Amino acid sequence: MKDFSRFAIHSYTNKPWPLATMVERYAKAGVSGISVWKETIEGMKPAQAAAMIKSAGLKVVSMVRGGFFPAPSAEERQQKIEDNLRLIRDSAELGAPLIVLVCGADPKVGLAQARDQVRAGIEAILPEAERLGIKLAIEPLHPMYADLRSVVNTMEQANDLCEAIDHQNLGVAVDVYHVWWDPKLEGEIERCGRLGRLFAFHVCDWKTPPEDFLNDRGLMGEGCIDIPLIRSWVEKTGFHGFVEVEIFSKRYWAMDQDIYLDMIKKAWEEKV
Amino acid sequence: MKDFSRFAIHSYTNKPWPLATMVERYAKAGVSGISVWKETIEGMKPAQAAAMIKSAGLKVVSMVRGGFFPAPSAEERQQKIEDNLRLIRDSAELGAPLIVLVCGADPKVGLAQARDQVRAGIEAILPEAERLGIKLAIEPLHPMYADLRSVVNTMEQANDLCEAIDHQNLGVAVDVYHVWWDPKLEGEIERCGRLGRLFAFHVCDWKTPPEDFLNDRGLMGEGCIDIPLIRSWVEKTGFHGFVEVEIFSKRYWAMDQDIYLDMIKKAWEEKV
Repeated sequence: MKDFSRFAIHSYTNKPWPLATMVERYAKAGVSGISVWKETIEGMKPAQAAAMIKSAGLKVVSMVRGGFFPAPSAEERQQKIEDNLRLIRDSAELGAPLIVLVCGADPKVGLAQARDQVRAGIEAILPEAERLGIKLAIEPLHPMYADLRSVVNTMEQANDLCEAIDHQNLGVAVDVYHVWWDPKLEGEIERCGRLGRLFAFHVCDWKTPPEDFLNDRGLMGEGCIDIPLIRSWVEKTGFHGFVEVEIFSKRYWAMDQDIYLDMIKKAWEEKV
Repeated sequence: MKDFSRFAIHSYTNKPWPLATMVERYAKAGVSGISVWKETIEGMKPAQAAAMIKSAGLKVVSMVRGGFFPAPSAEERQQKIEDNLRLIRDSAELGAPLIVLVCGADPKVGLAQARDQVRAGIEAILPEAERLGIKLAIEPLHPMYADLRSVVNTMEQANDLCEAIDHQNLGVAVDVYHVWWDPKLEGEIERCGRLGRLFAFHVCDWKTPPEDFLNDRGLMGEGCIDIPLIRSWVEKTGFHGFVEVEIFSKRYWAMDQDIYLDMIKKAWEEKV
């Protein structure tokens, strides 16, 4: 029998479901962990969401997502830091051991400056993360998002940032969608593991081509990413955490979510 | 008075115009060079196109585009090599000193293997390029095209490939649209110049965000790319070639092309 103890899903994947339905269906399907998007628990107290998830027998893998540090003015940047500090406290209440950081970008801020602002933002929130025992994982985002979502776009850059900041609570989330194309990927995953920074692993697929910059991710196996190869590199570093499914897709959100969950499970079992 | 001696445009930018109209309008507007897309001269003999361009007083900057080497079968790959050899001969007839290479990608071929096939393809055509005095410029393409258009996605990778193949006729075309996001861009442009490989420089802009993966490039100044900064890095290497405008845009193709050409000229003058 296949081992599903490392099978996790990001709540945004099944966006149409409210949390109560989601955790019930996940538990029934044999999903072991859930990464909780802020949007999914909006209007709920984190402790209430935590109780719901726990009573279904699921583990919270991560809170998604903090970051978004760059902004033109110091006031805006301070506001973003406070949002992140609040998210750290919410994550503690939720029982999430990790926050995924989408570092942010702003077309009005130059790239080099935005990268400095990302570093400053992470450094500003690390003490609170440490105090509450929460890890922070920089997720390098695909270069096509360097204008609006993240100026951290390669594993090499994320590793460099971890080395420069050098804090035990800071690491990297590897998402195949963002990094699959990178000619230096194998070496930088190895380096990330060697630094003890490989904190999370996300899977989906790259359709050829996607129809939409944001919401046309593929189910594992329907695109061109060699997921088993990347997973082998990740596990060679000693990573034994969850293999998390994270798919944003208008097509799949429009489907019956029970049927879609069956497809996700089958793809996780056979194509990852 | 502004110097337009380095002002060039890719023919695909003004796709609605036939070549005869295009060279007449370019010459009148003070454009000095044209990079000729295969599609623009389809059905014409290259020598006939060359005569038309020359009589308008324009220089041919490059032939666009060769490459597209990877494919699942050896027969298909051989066919692609032959297509490229024919393109080299056509370029000689056209009087184009350079061919831009979009190296190719195929979702049915693994990334590592496709990269080997690119190298093999380039090596197979270099002798003919040398014989006819044509340079080949690898254009690293944005990582969002690694599935279908090119598995060469960074300046570092293009430089590595040039160093590995080490042939005087092989270099790199820097297009700001593809490389602007790269945290290693400044260093790799410097390295490219040091290797004597910086053969061409293309400009346009990255809208935030683009509406389409292919045909929504921005006019210089309407996006987030710091074009003058990248140009300064390029020129610091000693590059004094054409600064070529290459824009694919459904919006602009739908416009009156005379008005659009005025906008291009103004943007080239003020935003590059």
